[in-house]
Amino acid sequence: MKGSITIVGLGPGSEKLISSEVQDAISNASDIVGYKNYVNRIAPRTEQNIHSSDNKFEISRAELAVKLALDGKRVVVVSSGDPGIFAMSSAFFEYIDKTEENVDDIEINVLPGISSLLAASSRIGAPLGHDFCVINLSDNLKPWKILEKRIILAIQSDFVVVFFNPRSKARPDTLKNAFKIFKKYSHCDRLVFFARSVYRKNEDLKIVKLSEASHEMADMNTLVIIGSSVSKLVSKNKTFFYTPRYYKP
Amino acid sequence: MKGSITIVGLGPGSEKLISSEVQDAISNASDIVGYKNYVNRIAPRTEQNIHSSDNKFEISRAELAVKLALDGKRVVVVSSGDPGIFAMSSAFFEYIDKTEENVDDIEINVLPGISSLLAASSRIGAPLGHDFCVINLSDNLKPWKILEKRIILAIQSDFVVVFFNPRSKARPDTLKNAFKIFKKYSHCDRLVFFARSVYRKNEDLKIVKLSEASHEMADMNTLVIIGSSVSKLVSKNKTFFYTPRYYKP
Repeated sequence: MKGSITIVGLGPGSEKLISSEVQDAISNASDIVGYKNYVNRIAPRTEQNIHSSDNKFEISRAELAVKLALDGKRVVVVSSGDPGIFAMSSAFFEYIDKTEENVDDIEINVLPGISSLLAASSRIGAPLGHDFCVINLSDNLKPWKILEKRIILAIQSDFVVVFFNPRSKARPDTLKNAFKIFKKYSHCDRLVFFARSVYRKNEDLKIVKLSEASHEMADMNTLVIIGSSVSKLVSKNKTFFYTPRYYKP
Repeated sequence: MKGSITIVGLGPGSEKLISSEVQDAISNASDIVGYKNYVNRIAPRTEQNIHSSDNKFEISRAELAVKLALDGKRVVVVSSGDPGIFAMSSAFFEYIDKTEENVDDIEINVLPGISSLLAASSRIGAPLGHDFCVINLSDNLKPWKILEKRIILAIQSDFVVVFFNPRSKARPDTLKNAFKIFKKYSHCDRLVFFARSVYRKNEDLKIVKLSEASHEMADMNTLVIIGSSVSKLVSKNKTFFYTPRYYKP
């Protein structure tokens, strides 16, 4: 019997952002695998097997999904946001690439979800209206030197810059150091948007100038978006943050 | 009477990717405004007013939406993919920023959708598993010199690079010129993914090496993703394209 693995994105936290494609995949699963906080967002049917695990066990989740699929199960691996943006998909393919298990008969699919990148932007206007880059600020899996180089080049490109995982208890200073680089290399006082727990009950949105930005305004549930030199605020019934489509150097 | 404007993303083309939040907004609208090909994806209720227009009329659509909302209408502006990624939102806020109409009493919201960026990636694995940048390759609203500079810096950053609007009839050579820059500055033969009409009937996915990539493999409905130096293929029941989470220079 041939099993399947479907890696799905649940969006940033609200049920109304989940696609019907993902909802159908979850309904049809025999087994659901994922980080416990994401699995807890699903209301499983009684006959479904739930396999929730702690954070940072991406590779062992991939291993479990393969083991179950080799047993003929229809496995869904749940991810927050979009599975392809600093989430489960990449870890899954790393495992698939290295495993000695024969996975050739397993049907593997990835179903997109609304990344917090898009959800955060939509809450404040259109900060990503022009060319941008997306950087995972964690230096767990890459050296800080690479991050430093990328931030400097992103400033020189005048990209809008999005930081995932800006800081954590184990890395209290990564965002602080990123702001230092911005202050040193930017020729202007850019806008900085802190989007915390977007689409969740404790959502908190804040915009400040780079000169007033502190790394303490972010935690591990915050996405940080730094505008380009031409990003702007426009205040009407709310204050919106957007980047125009045109660019004149 | 106070009207409202809600800018929504329909995803890349399949109804099963539309969020229930967006579906509700469309159901509750009195007026729907958008590019005709996007408006045609909606089945309107008989009492809804449909205002479809041709491509490249973003600013006049924004103007119409404001006019209708000032008349007390509940206006939904539809966009393909996510409205914030090279779509309607940015043009809308440009108009709002400049108009002399008093829009202070209009409630304005943006609802995210699944960008073709995420949908294309999900179809092939996890190419965006590591830091990446997203560039609109059209030089209609910015000079080619800026694009050239950004591409060179993106290569030096070793970002995965995503090109929206790689070429059109009016700009047959933008992607050709971008590939030339890649071939000149890249130290390796990167993977290039062409994702055409993702999630639509005529979907066409292709991966080649940069040395074999031709601009003629893309048209205006194609998203192009160029891997970083560490992006890889893994062939199992299908061939997947992914970028590992870790990075060793």
